[in-house]
Amino acid sequence: MSATENVEANPMEALKRRLGQISDLGAAEGLMSWDQETHMPDEAARVRGLQMATLAGLRHELFTDAKTGALLDAAGPQGEDEQAVVRVARHDYEKATKLPTEFVEEHARAQNEAHHAWLEARKHSDFRTFEPHLKRMMDLARRQADLRGYDTHPYDALMDDYEPGMRAEQVRGVFADLRDRTLPLLRRIVAAGDAADYSVLTRPFPAEAQKAFAWARAGEAFGLRPAFARQDESAHPFQTNFSRSDLRITTRVEDYWPACLFGTWHEAGHAMYERGVSERWERTPVSRGASLGVHESQSRMFENLLARSLPFWERYFPALEAAAPEVTRGLDAGALYRAVNRVQPSLIRVEADEVTYNFHIMLRFELELALLEGTLKVSELPEAWNAKMEEYLGLTPPDDAQGVLQDVHWSAGLIGYFPTYTLGNLLSVQLLDAAKADPAIAAGVARAEYGPLLDWLQRNVHQHGRSLTPEQITVQATGRPLSADPYVAYLHGKYEGIYGLK
Amino acid sequence: MSATENVEANPMEALKRRLGQISDLGAAEGLMSWDQETHMPDEAARVRGLQMATLAGLRHELFTDAKTGALLDAAGPQGEDEQAVVRVARHDYEKATKLPTEFVEEHARAQNEAHHAWLEARKHSDFRTFEPHLKRMMDLARRQADLRGYDTHPYDALMDDYEPGMRAEQVRGVFADLRDRTLPLLRRIVAAGDAADYSVLTRPFPAEAQKAFAWARAGEAFGLRPAFARQDESAHPFQTNFSRSDLRITTRVEDYWPACLFGTWHEAGHAMYERGVSERWERTPVSRGASLGVHESQSRMFENLLARSLPFWERYFPALEAAAPEVTRGLDAGALYRAVNRVQPSLIRVEADEVTYNFHIMLRFELELALLEGTLKVSELPEAWNAKMEEYLGLTPPDDAQGVLQDVHWSAGLIGYFPTYTLGNLLSVQLLDAAKADPAIAAGVARAEYGPLLDWLQRNVHQHGRSLTPEQITVQATGRPLSADPYVAYLHGKYEGIYGLK
Repeated sequence: MSATENVEANPMEALKRRLGQISDLGAAEGLMSWDQETHMPDEAARVRGLQMATLAGLRHELFTDAKTGALLDAAGPQGEDEQAVVRVARHDYEKATKLPTEFVEEHARAQNEAHHAWLEARKHSDFRTFEPHLKRMMDLARRQADLRGYDTHPYDALMDDYEPGMRAEQVRGVFADLRDRTLPLLRRIVAAGDAADYSVLTRPFPAEAQKAFAWARAGEAFGLRPAFARQDESAHPFQTNFSRSDLRITTRVEDYWPACLFGTWHEAGHAMYERGVSERWERTPVSRGASLGVHESQSRMFENLLARSLPFWERYFPALEAAAPEVTRGLDAGALYRAVNRVQPSLIRVEADEVTYNFHIMLRFELELALLEGTLKVSELPEAWNAKMEEYLGLTPPDDAQGVLQDVHWSAGLIGYFPTYTLGNLLSVQLLDAAKADPAIAAGVARAEYGPLLDWLQRNVHQHGRSLTPEQITVQATGRPLSADPYVAYLHGKYEGIYGLK
Repeated sequence: MSATENVEANPMEALKRRLGQISDLGAAEGLMSWDQETHMPDEAARVRGLQMATLAGLRHELFTDAKTGALLDAAGPQGEDEQAVVRVARHDYEKATKLPTEFVEEHARAQNEAHHAWLEARKHSDFRTFEPHLKRMMDLARRQADLRGYDTHPYDALMDDYEPGMRAEQVRGVFADLRDRTLPLLRRIVAAGDAADYSVLTRPFPAEAQKAFAWARAGEAFGLRPAFARQDESAHPFQTNFSRSDLRITTRVEDYWPACLFGTWHEAGHAMYERGVSERWERTPVSRGASLGVHESQSRMFENLLARSLPFWERYFPALEAAAPEVTRGLDAGALYRAVNRVQPSLIRVEADEVTYNFHIMLRFELELALLEGTLKVSELPEAWNAKMEEYLGLTPPDDAQGVLQDVHWSAGLIGYFPTYTLGNLLSVQLLDAAKADPAIAAGVARAEYGPLLDWLQRNVHQHGRSLTPEQITVQATGRPLSADPYVAYLHGKYEGIYGLK
């Protein structure tokens, strides 16, 4: 075939062609998954599972094939762009080929069994039936870290899948700082009491109107437009995409209407990040967000820093009035702003507010680190969980389902994943502060006109894709490594105001 | 890898595994195509094209790989089911590998250019700019037939893609018979005149109500249910599926509401055929309808023989009244039945009724046969087209856009495809007559209760997939080869009644 001859003559072109095929197989998998969550008839599930496994298998085969390694070696990179493609692809290739097939297969089996055991255990709120599976997942995590290799801590080798270059030691330092400076704030808020009326958050807001209002703002405020994106419903909201011009977000409609609105804007943040990656990385492994943490910084910025701000509701109150007159009756923008910024310690991470959220993450980080190091036994985990919940949030879970069993992550072997949520929160404020050093951006944000901010984010964060590390992006965009300072200052400023603590 | 060792140890298992992968890649392509027509944001089109080309390329590579041939040779078939898989896969493999890569690439390029030229030519109603492309497509068709090989007529080698085993000679005979016995009927209908009121067909019928009514009947009358199927909108209606439990039909809503209703039931016929293929062929090349003609027999049966019958409208008139009171006002089931069965010679195939439709097909069959044989030059085609339109339907197209340029098929190199529409019409009546030999089925049809008929179709037609040829299915199900007799009798019975010609 003439295509094959080209391949031999120009290894860089051959490499790009192969990476393009791998990317395309990934897009097909992604579409099958999106369709499964949004449109697929129920009875199609079994065969769809087989189809997705085939695509994943072919993609893995093509990528870990020795030929890919040979092309990476032979491809003399020319420009900077190609250097980045080779660098990122080699990083992924070496990680993928360091794990023997037997290990990958064993891990997949264990993961599958642990996931089913977790579903059952959560249903019956019975940690003991999940315990042996979690033990096995932790053993596999340790073996995975050993196979991958690491300088100082096995956790680093695992976290690299989610937050490349980040180290446990750095997370530990930043989290300790954050904890020491926000736990007193939380205690002051709780002590102050809360007389606000939150019933507005469940006033009647028809499902179609919720979705339409959220989607219209995603376009108008945040730039996510139907020409290159769409919104659908699914049981759990998510963002996926099959190219930077084919972005899909999903939402869920509840009586508690903020779930739909803020969920939509959260996913819009993820989508706009993927939208902003430069077209020159198209169909290469560079063409994605740099890390889960950087991704979360974008989704949290839209969801919390922008959409939970007073200027946002001042600007969009009339639109909400038109969309849901029963919700806004007798209220003004200030009352809405107040209602969507309730602080309240609670048991469940995904329902937590801006002040308490990070304590849920610190707890998980500390526990998984101790499990990996062996200073905590899996059998002691529920007790340790409950003790930390009491220490941080003053609550004790009534059962394991509302405690240690609430998240899917550990059952899926995702160790080193949780910190990215808080890293994203911290980075969101650090980035917004840096952007607002430009007076035009600051003025825009104060009027809820985000065009200049979106441009800044595209230039300083989005466009680079994976060609820069999260740390490079952070330092280049904000002039310093990640720090808890901006977030701590933001929380104090916002919530001392709301709760009258000055 | 352990999987590879299994492959060597058991060639039949290895073959099934490979055919499964090929089927799964096809399903992914199908989903990408469905999504493109129904949901995809506009700007995603360019990259989606690349992604679909990758999947098609990988699928083709995997299938035409010498390893597939070796597995077909080595796979000692055990049971009947496996014999069918090997037989059908070998048929496809030999056809696919008979065409050299250079030919396939040239054909794809020519097809692409011809398609764009056709779009332009049709827009400007200018056959001359399309002429060189059509010449090239006919040359390629002749070469393709030569490469494939054939016994008596090159047309047979082409038609095999759409109607395996059918021969030009047989089509010629059946079509001549059909023409001689239905052209007099058409002339009598035209001579009789038509005083019916067709304005009911464009009375106000809200879009959502059209879709909902059509979809509810697709389930209630024809068995196509949301548990394994869904309905969406697209510019051109189609059916596709990614397994027998994942069927997708699309529809289009127009002021002329029968387009949505009968279009939906037409696609439901295609879908229920795919639904009915036995699960034992899952993820093999046997797992599809036997041919386009047999497929069309099912869609036409639902659309015309059942949904354009008086019992259907007697049964569903109350539901229509509830769904669209403005449509039914002052009417009864009989008036509706009359309105949806208008006979009127017209220029456009896709708008034709049951009596005139087949003349559009005969005309195309005769012309493409003459082009392939070389007895007609491409330059003479528009004239020949218009002469035949005058001969059969008494009409002369005012321009080529409404004449020879109206269909996409020839620009896509689909020579030998058109006859399947009429073969399907003929088979639809032949099958229904055979089924109605069972009094329970006949009684059901007379009450528009199609459960017993659907069971008969599943047993006699659907379940076999491609394990039987169209002719085997026809003979086993109806006791005779395909004939024009049943269709001719059906047309006379129905339309002599409607037009009072007795």
